[in-house]
Amino acid sequence: MTQLELANKGRVSPQMRHVAAEEHVPVEAVRAGLAEGVIVIPANPRHEKLVPCGIGKGLRTKVNANIGTSSDFGNVRTELAKLRAAVAARADAIMDLSTGRNIAGVRRAVIKASTIPVGTVPIYQAAIEAIEKRGAIVAMKVEDLFDAIERQALDGVDFMTVHCGVTQSAIARLKAQGRVTDVVSRGGAFLIGWMLHNERENPLYEHYDRLLGLAQKYDVTLSLGDGMRPGSLADATDRAQVEELVILGELVDRAWKAGVQVMVEGPGHVPLDQIVANIQLQKSLCRGAPFYVLGPLVTDIAAGYDHITGAIGGAIAAAAGADFLCYVTQAEHLSLPDVQDVRSGVIASRIAAHAGDIVKNVPGARERDRQMAAARKKLDWELQARLALDPGRVRALHGRHATKSSACSMCGDYCAMELVGRYLNVAAVRC
Amino acid sequence: MTQLELANKGRVSPQMRHVAAEEHVPVEAVRAGLAEGVIVIPANPRHEKLVPCGIGKGLRTKVNANIGTSSDFGNVRTELAKLRAAVAARADAIMDLSTGRNIAGVRRAVIKASTIPVGTVPIYQAAIEAIEKRGAIVAMKVEDLFDAIERQALDGVDFMTVHCGVTQSAIARLKAQGRVTDVVSRGGAFLIGWMLHNERENPLYEHYDRLLGLAQKYDVTLSLGDGMRPGSLADATDRAQVEELVILGELVDRAWKAGVQVMVEGPGHVPLDQIVANIQLQKSLCRGAPFYVLGPLVTDIAAGYDHITGAIGGAIAAAAGADFLCYVTQAEHLSLPDVQDVRSGVIASRIAAHAGDIVKNVPGARERDRQMAAARKKLDWELQARLALDPGRVRALHGRHATKSSACSMCGDYCAMELVGRYLNVAAVRC
Repeated sequence: MTQLELANKGRVSPQMRHVAAEEHVPVEAVRAGLAEGVIVIPANPRHEKLVPCGIGKGLRTKVNANIGTSSDFGNVRTELAKLRAAVAARADAIMDLSTGRNIAGVRRAVIKASTIPVGTVPIYQAAIEAIEKRGAIVAMKVEDLFDAIERQALDGVDFMTVHCGVTQSAIARLKAQGRVTDVVSRGGAFLIGWMLHNERENPLYEHYDRLLGLAQKYDVTLSLGDGMRPGSLADATDRAQVEELVILGELVDRAWKAGVQVMVEGPGHVPLDQIVANIQLQKSLCRGAPFYVLGPLVTDIAAGYDHITGAIGGAIAAAAGADFLCYVTQAEHLSLPDVQDVRSGVIASRIAAHAGDIVKNVPGARERDRQMAAARKKLDWELQARLALDPGRVRALHGRHATKSSACSMCGDYCAMELVGRYLNVAAVRC
Repeated sequence: MTQLELANKGRVSPQMRHVAAEEHVPVEAVRAGLAEGVIVIPANPRHEKLVPCGIGKGLRTKVNANIGTSSDFGNVRTELAKLRAAVAARADAIMDLSTGRNIAGVRRAVIKASTIPVGTVPIYQAAIEAIEKRGAIVAMKVEDLFDAIERQALDGVDFMTVHCGVTQSAIARLKAQGRVTDVVSRGGAFLIGWMLHNERENPLYEHYDRLLGLAQKYDVTLSLGDGMRPGSLADATDRAQVEELVILGELVDRAWKAGVQVMVEGPGHVPLDQIVANIQLQKSLCRGAPFYVLGPLVTDIAAGYDHITGAIGGAIAAAAGADFLCYVTQAEHLSLPDVQDVRSGVIASRIAAHAGDIVKNVPGARERDRQMAAARKKLDWELQARLALDPGRVRALHGRHATKSSACSMCGDYCAMELVGRYLNVAAVRC
């Protein structure tokens, strides 16, 4: 039985217990959230080293790091190094998006090594194998696609992005709408090419029940991909995107009925003042299913720094109810990320997630900031480091200028808190 | 006459003309904005190399970089290097917050070299000279303070932070409220120490008309400092902060009556969901005077990455109407920033400012993103670099992995936009 089926029967799994303990919430809240569909625990029983992680309402906002080879670069060794960097920076999940030579080998190595949930996009492997075996993506057979999905499930993949909402109707609306950047989802593009060339419906939509059967069998959490996500601010929240989201809402219902855990993916490039509307729309159309957003990026012109652009959008999204943030690295739009990009990307998204958790009143979030504030007032540098998102960096930056002052080298002898402490006895801290 | 007095008389200055041309707005909009008090042009006639810059309603959101020595570190050479880094990264203004040995020498060198407006906090110099001459900050004479202000005005300082709202009434409310981090404004702390020790009112409040006289004489724009700004999320939007802001609102009225350009400073550490309220409150209490915010920082626990934390808050603030963002560097809370920290801090704040300008509909902001999107679709890498906030970094990151593909090394042969372009003829871009 899947975690959702267990929850529906009122049963509590070890995974639910673990998540409840981690999140400082009652186990019944986790079970009820799973049953309602507002929480998922992507946990393929075949993923042996997995430490379960819950995503959804009432839980800490989670961060995903994308790794994987490209057609030109990367191998098992480089991707395992990225996995280690992501876990060290405390990513909550990882997606292996490999499209290079040894897709299956990289994936198996990543799953074997990973303690955090592993996601994939099976259409990548199916499409690339279609090129190798049949000469073109458009020659892919429906069997090839489902075969790739099942092989990945057997390998222990915890969640899979499936672009089931890229239907002929969504493509028709895309054409009628017009766009600056057309389609920027790689999985969406593979499917659109196949659908237009073969004049057929999206097989992941047409055979959605078959997909649900596999997902139920292996308890793979479906992450309904947004193939129509905007690739620029100018295309945000348009009819193609919203048509797809309406379809995804229907598919969420069907997943739940089939006992399959499901979450929904969202944009992408979104102007700052449209982010809250995007979150509310997804929550309404998809009946509260966990929302997994990519960024969002609040401008198109910050290439080279899109970890920051994504942190801005991610913080607003998380505060408005997004449950799961996919990081964007500083290499986005420019090149395959390296280990350092992975690290800085995870940290930036964790800042965003935590800023959102403060607003969401996630248990413990505000308290950690309060403890940091108190440590700051005491000029207790080691406690500040321990409470920070990245203790090593705090120690390095504080330590780089030796100062005789008990304050830091920024203010030296003229630390405001130290000065005021001499003259002012402010009332005890409110609680 | 000050820029405000000229505008009030219906006269257009070369500075107004320059700002209008730079911002692609009618010169009459700039003049009217100045007269209404919702725009300032900090432009001390003694600052010879200055290229004028407007701050306020209808204009591009501006970014300030703080530089300056501390008691332990820095000198003329290091601070000029920071100035060059800030200007190269396209900061719109700089503040010299030096508190080290040669405060006047650093300031004069910075003003002489700077093409962008230079701000200072004169109480720093007055307080430190009081220690040197009289043995303690609390021994500072009122004359010392006004003498420092006038010397700085004579040097060509364009705008000065003056913590005029740190009154005995604000201190009383601070004491009654209770706080986790008391006071974190250095200028505020100097004044509070002096006021409590001497049992006197804040000289900048008590002798505000004298201050206005100097500001009018030299056309120094006053930046009404927020000595009571919260130093942690737990202290945000409390009664001490708001009491000070109410007082600053009154002081804005008095500045306008005296023909003095004025803006208002704001927090600081603010939970994400309180930022919009903070902007609206300032705009209401201060009748639309330009708002100059520090960050805001949306969490306390991201030390080492507070350029990102500040970019999150700054973007939300700018979108809600903040006019001027003071950067926060990654060294904030930990050490005196170096040249690299200055650079990354300016870039992060520029991302925030631009994300806000898209929402504000600042002339040209959306168009630049649209051009970038079109360049991306065409896979025109050089045009993407030219349109980006940091062209050099775009070229470096895109160029670091050689790829045979016309796309980037992230997607290589499987670029979504390239694939879709083969199969899909999307309608022409909407305009």
